[in-house]
Amino acid sequence: LCGISMQTVTLIPGDGIGPEISTAVMRIFEAAQVPIQWDERNVTAIQGPGGNWMIPPNTKESMDRNKIGLKGPLKTPVAAGHPSMNLLLRKTFDLYANVRPCMSIEGYKTPYTDVDLVTIRENTEGEYSGIEHVIVDGVVQSIKLITEDASERIAKYAFEYAVNNQRSSVTAVHKANIMRMSDGLFLRKCREAAENYKDIKFTEMYLDTVCLNMVQDPTQFDVLVMPNLYGDILSDLCAGLIGGLGVTPSGNIGTNGVAIFESVHGTAPDIAGADLANPTALLLSAVMMLRHMGLHAHAQRIQTACFNTIQDKRVLTKDLGGNAKCSEFTAAICERVQDLD
Amino acid sequence: LCGISMQTVTLIPGDGIGPEISTAVMRIFEAAQVPIQWDERNVTAIQGPGGNWMIPPNTKESMDRNKIGLKGPLKTPVAAGHPSMNLLLRKTFDLYANVRPCMSIEGYKTPYTDVDLVTIRENTEGEYSGIEHVIVDGVVQSIKLITEDASERIAKYAFEYAVNNQRSSVTAVHKANIMRMSDGLFLRKCREAAENYKDIKFTEMYLDTVCLNMVQDPTQFDVLVMPNLYGDILSDLCAGLIGGLGVTPSGNIGTNGVAIFESVHGTAPDIAGADLANPTALLLSAVMMLRHMGLHAHAQRIQTACFNTIQDKRVLTKDLGGNAKCSEFTAAICERVQDLD
Ligand SMILES: CC(C)[C@H](C(=O)O)[C@@H](O)C(=O)O
Ligand SMILES: CC(C)[C@H](C(=O)O)[C@@H](O)C(=O)O
Repeated sequence: LCGISMQTVTLIPGDGIGPEISTAVMRIFEAAQVPIQWDERNVTAIQGPGGNWMIPPNTKESMDRNKIGLKGPLKTPVAAGHPSMNLLLRKTFDLYANVRPCMSIEGYKTPYTDVDLVTIRENTEGEYSGIEHVIVDGVVQSIKLITEDASERIAKYAFEYAVNNQRSSVTAVHKANIMRMSDGLFLRKCREAAENYKDIKFTEMYLDTVCLNMVQDPTQFDVLVMPNLYGDILSDLCAGLIGGLGVTPSGNIGTNGVAIFESVHGTAPDIAGADLANPTALLLSAVMMLRHMGLHAHAQRIQTACFNTIQDKRVLTKDLGGNAKCSEFTAAICERVQDLD
Repeated sequence: LCGISMQTVTLIPGDGIGPEISTAVMRIFEAAQVPIQWDERNVTAIQGPGGNWMIPPNTKESMDRNKIGLKGPLKTPVAAGHPSMNLLLRKTFDLYANVRPCMSIEGYKTPYTDVDLVTIRENTEGEYSGIEHVIVDGVVQSIKLITEDASERIAKYAFEYAVNNQRSSVTAVHKANIMRMSDGLFLRKCREAAENYKDIKFTEMYLDTVCLNMVQDPTQFDVLVMPNLYGDILSDLCAGLIGGLGVTPSGNIGTNGVAIFESVHGTAPDIAGADLANPTALLLSAVMMLRHMGLHAHAQRIQTACFNTIQDKRVLTKDLGGNAKCSEFTAAICERVQDLD
């Protein structure tokens, strides 16, 4: 419109409260006049001719075309027989870096203040290889797979992220005292990457020590990089420090600009459709997405409007301590976005 | 003496501050007239004729005879070429259950109050199997080994612990959504054990969810049981909630009464020999040991003396916020122990 080039983003609203919080994000984007349009898709599990599970072909095509996606929560495939569609999305688009910034939100009280860190999780291998065997009756092994390529790639990503986001240190999180070869390889690749980023302070720390120090003083951490499972654990722990998954954004980053941003909370079936959900996590994920797309001014404006609304405390959803509906909270953010124009 | 049967305990003072804090514990035990005597040993790494690493034969004999040990910190074998002696001790004596109670200490301020939980960690297999391979150049695998026997044994231990310690719930911690076979087997054994303990509430939870909930509200947890690595992580996290490894006891329990109790903090080489160390973690481990030996009255008296000394705040080591020496803090506890007689 009027010479503004409109990028298209694949929108996967997801299940449960997914559609409501997606609508909230779309409203706020409209109020902020973000120059993007949405291509709405779903990720129902589809079984290919060979029996392999895949995401619906038209969703794949949409992502291949748009490169960038925003995704709400998906219901867990309890006994549905198919793999986690979240994991399948990461795999399908080789989204190798899972990035979760954790920032204390002013006005939203937790036992911690001034948290400002980012977990960067290797998203494609490690304990999530899916390779498991029964050796003999009653003896099972799961294989943790660590490769030089994936370790090098994520280590480099972490340092690049630090440089591009004015961060000053990177901590490699590992258990190379126990898994000497696998975590050892991961750690070696982090050390090698560190050599090329002399301005970024590099430290290495055992996962258990990080957990202990994290709950004692999270402000000592900046960027943390780690294998898949450790990232799963640590990102949730950090989310807990600032108020939980309802306020924590997440991005899955691939190569050539491909990325999917998602809220990582559940589908909250108990309140689905009741206009009670908190859209903050999806909205902040969408803000990460805007930064990824270079739309920094829009990102900043929406983030400020969201944080100010929370800090103001007058219009909050129930989980944030208020009694506003999702649509009212959304309207409050829209108003602020327009005021910030 | 006078008809009291004296049990002997193997004492492994360990490295760094180990000897000082061991002396502190011995003093307090003397003041409390605990009817045990010490058999002091070390665990220098010894290489057998076949090249295999082992603990010194006379230490092994001592443990075989006494069954019960108390151990201070051991220096990490950085590049020493031998395995962790901590792990070797657990393996040598088949100490399959690692038990770490975490209780808020009144008067020692952290962001959390009323923490009162116990982590029970499978201590012999899982991610600590030590089996690793290079598949091809740049591709490494580590094997996580889960067996029916070890899972059943630890699950049963957790429920027995709950029953014997007036605990009301057991939570199995897992990632069976990802490691379906290995964590799946572990979880199945927990479910089966739960069937035999109808008075104990059983729940199961993903490790990431536990971490998130733990930092938001640790009081919701009671007994937690989990595979090896998850226990390593979660026990440190929980220690962080109540003040760190300097105040957290630990017990490694085997069959037929065999057990080693240990402080799990480091050797603190920077203050070793300076009479500045805090003996609390080793002392509380020794209290766990007394309970294990059935010496409940002595255990309670020493624990109360220790907690009262901390709560009183007048004589505290530096890490606890005071400026007393280790020997002064020890003397303060001894005095209270005698007053409680
Ligand atoms: C949905 C689930 C498979 C996933 C994981 O275990 O990685 C989730 O916990 C996450 O952190 O994204
Ligand atoms: C000493 C070390 C090998 C050990 C572990 O990783 O288990 C320690 O962290 C622990 O928790 O006892």
